[in-house]
Amino acid sequence: MERIDELQRGGFRLIQDPDKFCFGTDAVLLADFAKAKAGEKVCDLCTGTGVIPLLMLARYPRSFYTGVEIQPDMAEMAERSMILNDVEDKIRILGGDLRRIRLMLPANAFDVVTVNPPYMKVRPDSLKNDSSSVRLARHEIACSLSDVMAAARYLLRTHGHFYMVHRPNRLSEIFEEMLKAGIEPKRMQLVYPYRDKEATQVLIEGTLGGGKEMRIEPPLITYEAPGIYTEEMLKVYGMDGHNRKTVDSKGGERS
Amino acid sequence: MERIDELQRGGFRLIQDPDKFCFGTDAVLLADFAKAKAGEKVCDLCTGTGVIPLLMLARYPRSFYTGVEIQPDMAEMAERSMILNDVEDKIRILGGDLRRIRLMLPANAFDVVTVNPPYMKVRPDSLKNDSSSVRLARHEIACSLSDVMAAARYLLRTHGHFYMVHRPNRLSEIFEEMLKAGIEPKRMQLVYPYRDKEATQVLIEGTLGGGKEMRIEPPLITYEAPGIYTEEMLKVYGMDGHNRKTVDSKGGERS
Repeated sequence: MERIDELQRGGFRLIQDPDKFCFGTDAVLLADFAKAKAGEKVCDLCTGTGVIPLLMLARYPRSFYTGVEIQPDMAEMAERSMILNDVEDKIRILGGDLRRIRLMLPANAFDVVTVNPPYMKVRPDSLKNDSSSVRLARHEIACSLSDVMAAARYLLRTHGHFYMVHRPNRLSEIFEEMLKAGIEPKRMQLVYPYRDKEATQVLIEGTLGGGKEMRIEPPLITYEAPGIYTEEMLKVYGMDGHNRKTVDSKGGERS
Repeated sequence: MERIDELQRGGFRLIQDPDKFCFGTDAVLLADFAKAKAGEKVCDLCTGTGVIPLLMLARYPRSFYTGVEIQPDMAEMAERSMILNDVEDKIRILGGDLRRIRLMLPANAFDVVTVNPPYMKVRPDSLKNDSSSVRLARHEIACSLSDVMAAARYLLRTHGHFYMVHRPNRLSEIFEEMLKAGIEPKRMQLVYPYRDKEATQVLIEGTLGGGKEMRIEPPLITYEAPGIYTEEMLKVYGMDGHNRKTVDSKGGERS
């Protein structure tokens, strides 16, 4: 059953359905990592509920957003969220398959592409026809990393910026596919759950046709101790040190 | 003028010449990051003073080491260090150019290759004939990253391990060149001077002919506060929390 969640950003609310796919920390991390300038056009691939354009609009209200989502019911729900927030003039949602992006959007028309893609490879022995909403969002059934990069390359203008959140175990393929697409990796941030634990997420920025020069941001460590967020993570969630709130494990904020 | 430094590892001492190139923190980090099993053969490219084989021998005394150094006077000094430590049967130093590795060593004969290469690109406007010892060790005058990877590929057996320390600004090229050489990135660790600062070093492990799957180790943060090492860094330097010593900025330990 659908519910309406407060995003704690710009007064925005988001329609979600726990039976389908609800956004997690990754979306919040990506929306914080990505940047957009006034007047710039941003395309969010695999937009799901449309949470990333909404979070970015709260930070960059003078940019324009397009969200592309393959699942028709998710796209329709995201569109209703935009109506609910009265931002249809700033965020447009398109239902469609990014492998057919050429039929949906013009080439080189975006300054920024963001994506929180499915992380997991589809194993040859897995059930290809199990296409539940959650499975589609998590596994590379409907699009591979290579498909994502090809779509990003098509959409971006020269020197346009690409932002992605993904899993460290795929990092070698991420570099390989970005380089193949001519999107040069420029900035990276690793997210570690604790200071003494391996990274669980990677945030990466690339530039179409960019030069060979990277930087790696300070580590983003999530927890100081179990249940206690670090200062840097509270900043990502838009909560300062004096106004802490409980945040559940999926990143949904509760007052 | 030459001096003899205590390595605080295995009772080993190292001959260095401050007018040439002295080892720094990077060598200590790499020797800690790299691994070797009993009986395995390790080749250290750009070995300089031979510090990496010595530090590794202290940890892995049952492996065999070969250090390759292009500068004849450095190679000769490294060789004297091995005689000084009475480890000529465990560490052999070869003077020679890694671009001609085929003339020096047999193919696919090593289980492990380590390298702390020159980090900096040579700018077209720079003086190519300024070939001082320090400049050769720091700039890609005598070997490019591509040359290093080609030598590593030649030396390694299938599924042999490659370990390198480098600079984050070159990370995209590092992935590109490793992939070109068929050495698949498998494990990475970022070194951050402080918790809130950008990474300054990257440690990377690859496997010749390895599969696509990576992991990113916990962050290695150097300082808790100015002059105060973190516990993880003290561990790298082989000093536990109860037996701290002053360590100078170049990583040379003082009692």
